[in-house]
Amino acid sequence: MTKNRVVGVIGLGHVGAHVAYSLAVQGIADELVLVDQNQQKLQSEVQDLRDAAAYLPHRVTVRPGDFADLGECDVIVNSAGKIDLLRGNHDRVKEMDFTIPAVRSYTEKIKASGFDGVVINITNPCDIVTRELALGLGLPKGRVFGTGTGLDTSRLLSALARQTGIDHKSITCYMLGEHGNQQFAPWSCVSFRGMPLDKWAQTDERFRFDREALQKESIGGAWVTFSGKNCTEYGISTTAARMVHIVLHDEKAIMPASMELCGEYGESGLFAGVPCVIGAKGVEEVVELPLTDEEKAKFHACCEGIRHNMEHLKEL
Amino acid sequence: MTKNRVVGVIGLGHVGAHVAYSLAVQGIADELVLVDQNQQKLQSEVQDLRDAAAYLPHRVTVRPGDFADLGECDVIVNSAGKIDLLRGNHDRVKEMDFTIPAVRSYTEKIKASGFDGVVINITNPCDIVTRELALGLGLPKGRVFGTGTGLDTSRLLSALARQTGIDHKSITCYMLGEHGNQQFAPWSCVSFRGMPLDKWAQTDERFRFDREALQKESIGGAWVTFSGKNCTEYGISTTAARMVHIVLHDEKAIMPASMELCGEYGESGLFAGVPCVIGAKGVEEVVELPLTDEEKAKFHACCEGIRHNMEHLKEL
Amino acid sequence: MTKNRVVGVIGLGHVGAHVAYSLAVQGIADELVLVDQNQQKLQSEVQDLRDAAAYLPHRVTVRPGDFADLGECDVIVNSAGKIDLLRGNHDRVKEMDFTIPAVRSYTEKIKASGFDGVVINITNPCDIVTRELALGLGLPKGRVFGTGTGLDTSRLLSALARQTGIDHKSITCYMLGEHGNQQFAPWSCVSFRGMPLDKWAQTDERFRFDREALQKESIGGAWVTFSGKNCTEYGISTTAARMVHIVLHDEKAIMPASMELCGEYGESGLFAGVPCVIGAKGVEEVVELPLTDEEKAKFHACCEGIRHNMEHLKEL
Amino acid sequence: MTKNRVVGVIGLGHVGAHVAYSLAVQGIADELVLVDQNQQKLQSEVQDLRDAAAYLPHRVTVRPGDFADLGECDVIVNSAGKIDLLRGNHDRVKEMDFTIPAVRSYTEKIKASGFDGVVINITNPCDIVTRELALGLGLPKGRVFGTGTGLDTSRLLSALARQTGIDHKSITCYMLGEHGNQQFAPWSCVSFRGMPLDKWAQTDERFRFDREALQKESIGGAWVTFSGKNCTEYGISTTAARMVHIVLHDEKAIMPASMELCGEYGESGLFAGVPCVIGAKGVEEVVELPLTDEEKAKFHACCEGIRHNMEHLKEL
Repeated sequence: MTKNRVVGVIGLGHVGAHVAYSLAVQGIADELVLVDQNQQKLQSEVQDLRDAAAYLPHRVTVRPGDFADLGECDVIVNSAGKIDLLRGNHDRVKEMDFTIPAVRSYTEKIKASGFDGVVINITNPCDIVTRELALGLGLPKGRVFGTGTGLDTSRLLSALARQTGIDHKSITCYMLGEHGNQQFAPWSCVSFRGMPLDKWAQTDERFRFDREALQKESIGGAWVTFSGKNCTEYGISTTAARMVHIVLHDEKAIMPASMELCGEYGESGLFAGVPCVIGAKGVEEVVELPLTDEEKAKFHACCEGIRHNMEHLKEL
Repeated sequence: MTKNRVVGVIGLGHVGAHVAYSLAVQGIADELVLVDQNQQKLQSEVQDLRDAAAYLPHRVTVRPGDFADLGECDVIVNSAGKIDLLRGNHDRVKEMDFTIPAVRSYTEKIKASGFDGVVINITNPCDIVTRELALGLGLPKGRVFGTGTGLDTSRLLSALARQTGIDHKSITCYMLGEHGNQQFAPWSCVSFRGMPLDKWAQTDERFRFDREALQKESIGGAWVTFSGKNCTEYGISTTAARMVHIVLHDEKAIMPASMELCGEYGESGLFAGVPCVIGAKGVEEVVELPLTDEEKAKFHACCEGIRHNMEHLKEL
Repeated sequence: MTKNRVVGVIGLGHVGAHVAYSLAVQGIADELVLVDQNQQKLQSEVQDLRDAAAYLPHRVTVRPGDFADLGECDVIVNSAGKIDLLRGNHDRVKEMDFTIPAVRSYTEKIKASGFDGVVINITNPCDIVTRELALGLGLPKGRVFGTGTGLDTSRLLSALARQTGIDHKSITCYMLGEHGNQQFAPWSCVSFRGMPLDKWAQTDERFRFDREALQKESIGGAWVTFSGKNCTEYGISTTAARMVHIVLHDEKAIMPASMELCGEYGESGLFAGVPCVIGAKGVEEVVELPLTDEEKAKFHACCEGIRHNMEHLKEL
Repeated sequence: MTKNRVVGVIGLGHVGAHVAYSLAVQGIADELVLVDQNQQKLQSEVQDLRDAAAYLPHRVTVRPGDFADLGECDVIVNSAGKIDLLRGNHDRVKEMDFTIPAVRSYTEKIKASGFDGVVINITNPCDIVTRELALGLGLPKGRVFGTGTGLDTSRLLSALARQTGIDHKSITCYMLGEHGNQQFAPWSCVSFRGMPLDKWAQTDERFRFDREALQKESIGGAWVTFSGKNCTEYGISTTAARMVHIVLHDEKAIMPASMELCGEYGESGLFAGVPCVIGAKGVEEVVELPLTDEEKAKFHACCEGIRHNMEHLKEL
């Protein structure tokens, strides 16, 4: 008999609550199990989500839960965080002081629930927290991955669509590396349904833009959002919801995500944002784009940056 | 030639921004024009929404605008408000002191834009602000209506679905009257795809519940949400988005909304939450349910309450 | 880990192939397993469906299969038939001579596959063939049901929407009894989101129509379709696809279906079209509408008609 | 005020009727206007489509019409044809004898209706009939285009997805040239979200397949479908429906279509299948992929083939 698709969300801050809404409104999950330490916040988010469900064309049920309830989930989205720490001083690495111990505090609880699905991590610093979760949970390789540069790629896609007028679904581009300041756009891989950016730029003004500026815009987008609303909500939650959809339907779509590197792009021992084939088993394959030498160097610099930040783990 | 569906949102607080997201993620609008006095907040919301757009299967563009840009909109959602005024003292009537002058300040600007579509008002007190907007804009009858008890009905639907296990789409129920404390549920009209609640309650335990408690839950739902998150987001934005969808597709669906009464239910001279046939012209018809005498009395009491609150208008 | 939603379709005539397309294009199933004796027809339908899949926003895979492959299905739609027999002489009862032996020929094969899901039968005469399948498969009660008057109800809904201008989703109505000439519309149960037809007819011309004519139109709709295209495709396949959706998402929606009666409506020992609560376990409950005495008599006449036709089973 | 999206379909054979269903079931059009000489067939298709509408989550109305009713349409899909001529001898060029005079017979009627939207032609031979329609209607350039190799590309996409296991939405590929036997796949342009096929083939078995065989499969797919069902339905209708969606939402998506060449790819004076940016104005741009010399030669051969077939026009 058919089984409902159940998604758990850990951490009902701005991001987690919006992941839940994005999953609900798009009909991606049949059931949502929400977990948060703050019971009053949890009840409020559950109420608000239930109030939305009645005007959707599909059925979705939402309930508060505990870590023990995560065992029946197909996918867990981890979005524990403490946004208040960041006001006026948004630093994804600083978040480690709070998020690494937080994540460590419940890894065993997730294991104890009997959970055997896929975990998608949002909590920052994304690449490092994802690795921590993967190590702690001990699930088969690929089953724990992070949103990584998925959101940043979305920003670049959106900027390219506005710049060129071409629909985002016809654009291929990536932000790679760290979900943080050290990410970069490999321009050699940008194309428009098979038409390379470099080629189109030869004949059309729209495709001759300031690439450095667009890359900066993609990296800095989070701060634009944060500066005026003290949180980020729609971009990150839609990115995570898209990933959940891919997993639940075993789509085998290619999308950037934070995944463990075991020699791909010449790197090992860390998680970083790379193009991945995602399916029911999580990240099933890392796609090794033919980067230029300059792009390879940038990717390596990103990895070095992540490694540098990982040093901080020893103090936690 | 085909014309894109353009929706304007006035007021990018929690509610307005989420209306924009709900419209975007569901592909209801092709273009969103967002208007807010706070330019930094506006830029942040636009950025966040654009970050989401790239992972949606449809195309939606989002841009900041001014009142002058509203002329090309098919529908405007009005959600100006000042949630900060309400912390610790959430009173929808008190909001009048801020919202009535606010709305009056831009009615002429909307008219000047040449706007000739439908306005859906969310701003509280919903019934009174909707009337103010309708009077100010001078559009044909029905073109300005409010979310009214649409959200409260959603809460009751959701509660009934949880109580009985029946899918919300197979349940008919209403909250009527004031979008505020004086609303009520006409239980005689509750049915499950033609099966009256009263009849099913005769043979099945699940349908014999404490109706008063469920009604209270529906009225109090807003406070449950507000208490833990200091705002309401998903329920109200999904309700408004559903109404926008109905208008844009000229659906002629029946849904509760805050509409001018001209003799229906024996009332006149005010806006209140009643079942409405909604289409491209806004509310095209008010549906007069066969209420019991007791329910009629409750509806009248609601109207008296709204009239009482309208007295406060004279001071503004 | 999440499991794809797999739907099997037995019989790739016009109806079965269109069920597959309707499931694919709406993204209801992740995988389709198609079974037909005619291998060339099967290959052609698989090719045509695969050609469609690439322009859909979701992923769906389609493959030809054998009865042994049905074991992994969540739902099976049975649509074996022989439309050619009917040209010029469309008689649903006559179809028994072909369809009853056909269904009997593969019941054991379905059992042998280890199938443990829900079966939705379309094959005519629907009420009788559904009973035959249920008896043969020996699954728990409710797991085998038929489209029954689901399609006829769709016709009535559509006719009422055109007559009144109200959106079909705001209309509640039923065709009940036999999926055949003896069905009827219980007008006392027709309402528009809680507004009874009888009440609205008192004040509005649109709701005062020739009910007998509309009922006839609903019963005769199949012939209108058949007369010009020698088959029926979209209505029946969309009805079945809707039912599959309800089962796969455990919706608990109320919808007319052909279900075994065990005392409901005072009838036993046969399958007939009645309102049902449908979920992951198939028909989980029969809803007993408060029919008028006249309507009860009509329903009984339908059942007598089905029983009469069941007599023919003895000769097969 | 908002205006419903209206799509007209000319020719209610297998293809046209399925375009209507595909548009209805996906909620792409709000209103469908169907035109066919055979009034009985027309009534049957309208009935069948209306029977389907009631189980869809959106509202769509369907009505039979005349050429004069096409004036209010945003998009017209032309699918007049005479499939019976082809049994046992399916030749797209032979169809000219019937389709060219047919199309000529109603071009003036479409003009007289005041139609000012976009025309998408399916009728074969697609490239030649599309040109005929464009010449006859005299609309601005790009407003008349054909499904061309859109369907063939879908076949290749589907075959590549099965071969590699990668989701079709992550694959970029094309069939170009004639919608007929002379089309070809430019393999140099095939990529998987930026990962070139040639590169992936270096390291992964799945990507080292018999390209010639896959191309043949894509060209021959129509015959596979036709051989077992004497018509093609789902693939072509879903392709056309996708194009209608792109136009109605002004998507600016890149998709292969049959478009007039005015120097692009070094060709002029004919319509052929090329990648196009499609929006509200139809084909707004032809994308000139960087083909290899061999691929350029193949494309030229296709154009010569189309020109050869166009010779036959002089006799009609």
